[in-house]
Amino acid sequence: MIAAIQELLPPDRGPLLGVGDDAAVVSAPDRRVVATTDLLVEGRHFRRDWSGPRDVGVKAAAQNLADIAAMGAVPTALLVGLATPGELPVAWALDLVRGLLDECQRAGASIAGGDVTSADTLVLAITALGDLAGRPPVTRAGARPGDQLAVAGPLGWSAAGLALLSAGYGDQAGRDDRIGSLVAAHRRPQPPYQAGPQAARLGATSMIDVSDGLVQDLGHVAAASGVCVDIQTAGLPASGPLRAAARMLDADWLDWALAGGEDHALVATFPAGLVLPEEWTVIGTVLGALRSGSGVLVNSRPRPGPGGWNHFR
Amino acid sequence: MIAAIQELLPPDRGPLLGVGDDAAVVSAPDRRVVATTDLLVEGRHFRRDWSGPRDVGVKAAAQNLADIAAMGAVPTALLVGLATPGELPVAWALDLVRGLLDECQRAGASIAGGDVTSADTLVLAITALGDLAGRPPVTRAGARPGDQLAVAGPLGWSAAGLALLSAGYGDQAGRDDRIGSLVAAHRRPQPPYQAGPQAARLGATSMIDVSDGLVQDLGHVAAASGVCVDIQTAGLPASGPLRAAARMLDADWLDWALAGGEDHALVATFPAGLVLPEEWTVIGTVLGALRSGSGVLVNSRPRPGPGGWNHFR
Repeated sequence: MIAAIQELLPPDRGPLLGVGDDAAVVSAPDRRVVATTDLLVEGRHFRRDWSGPRDVGVKAAAQNLADIAAMGAVPTALLVGLATPGELPVAWALDLVRGLLDECQRAGASIAGGDVTSADTLVLAITALGDLAGRPPVTRAGARPGDQLAVAGPLGWSAAGLALLSAGYGDQAGRDDRIGSLVAAHRRPQPPYQAGPQAARLGATSMIDVSDGLVQDLGHVAAASGVCVDIQTAGLPASGPLRAAARMLDADWLDWALAGGEDHALVATFPAGLVLPEEWTVIGTVLGALRSGSGVLVNSRPRPGPGGWNHFR
Repeated sequence: MIAAIQELLPPDRGPLLGVGDDAAVVSAPDRRVVATTDLLVEGRHFRRDWSGPRDVGVKAAAQNLADIAAMGAVPTALLVGLATPGELPVAWALDLVRGLLDECQRAGASIAGGDVTSADTLVLAITALGDLAGRPPVTRAGARPGDQLAVAGPLGWSAAGLALLSAGYGDQAGRDDRIGSLVAAHRRPQPPYQAGPQAARLGATSMIDVSDGLVQDLGHVAAASGVCVDIQTAGLPASGPLRAAARMLDADWLDWALAGGEDHALVATFPAGLVLPEEWTVIGTVLGALRSGSGVLVNSRPRPGPGGWNHFR
């Protein structure tokens, strides 16, 4: 299987030293390397009967590469650990790697190394590396009162796509563009990688990727920065597909946009008055110091509960 | 659990940015980073009834950090993914982290980040990073005819320790130093990390860490370098404990030394005539080009089979 995987890796672009030795060598021109790791467990993070291998690969790569971008860094490489039951078809594993490669290509990264072993449960362990290009990392801790809050990438599309699939609209995805775009966003999130380093260059004071839901993830920024963040829903990116799906399912599109996870949009705070490029949509402001509560307001009012997906269901 | 793990991490030495943001930032002064990843699955790579959590942590860290050293690099950081059944005691997980930290300290590395998730099977996913300090990586592919073959670290101790445990000598480990040192080597391998960068500085032409057995791992060097390697058993490091255990078990200590895995000794080839420091013991030479077979001879004669542990049992 390892030999078959190696044959998939593009020879023309890759790490300085790739698969096949004790370790890989990856370029780190900045003299620092950004690194993150995530485990994906079958039945918990994906289901083989709901997702094809290529989709699982895209999703696994995207959630790690988005963490790199959320530090303001440029993704450079993935390391891939695969623990697999013996009965897993080799073709499934190869399509998984194709999905990882698809998303690496979007992000400008390569697969540098990995490990394959057997296990009763299918587990994917992905490590992503990135380069800061001379800039300080953009952490969760730098938001300041008065900053503007902005988002790059879709909010709630993945959650809406999942709701459509759960309601049996999967078959219509191919015939209805609006349904199709939401289902596609659920199956293969497309984080706006380049917006991460762009935000760092613009002087973003904090940044996070939306993996668990806008309100919940902004809670981490509020806590780390010691501030209160106010989302103005009138500012959320206009979304025809999201509103159309909400009408079809008699749902509230705001629930998806505020609490839906897995889009891996980037949310950042920027100094007041800075004119942001078109990738970024202003969706609120940073208020004063955090005194109590989650630190996240919606239209200047607190919302009960932690604000994550479960809260809104 | 994550909060409890964070409290174990030493605040005084660590990565540039550690656990708690989207990603960690690790120093990479060389402008390249060496990276390797391994999965350890309960029941396959360790057993909770045979190994304590601290031993599992040491072993998991050691096998990854040794891969970094085997490139001639200095280990800098670990990323730790832990997929765990809900019933795993938190104390077990914390002792696992203590074991990882023990070995990180030996190697000069720190824990930079990680991920914890639930799964039916206990799976550890370790990624190690390292720095080449301005030198080219020492790969498996550079051995040249005429080179001397040398080893740093013990050979066969882990296998002998396992054989002693399997034969019921575990209880004597505390009373008999020779048994104790072998059992300890099995439970907590101690790779000679500093010998990796040392070999690179000395001009090693190839290097690998012995994870599957000397003969088998040298087969990778022979194949990658296109050479034939000759191990002279008279040169193998003298080992009182190994010979004593062989007498007790009516076994052949050479089988352990040639085919035992998991010691994570470093084996390297050096230019002929170079006088090696005491960390390195010359155990053979590189002969001419590889024409057929595994490329590994023992006392100038081929040995049947691939030469790994299974062959010798």
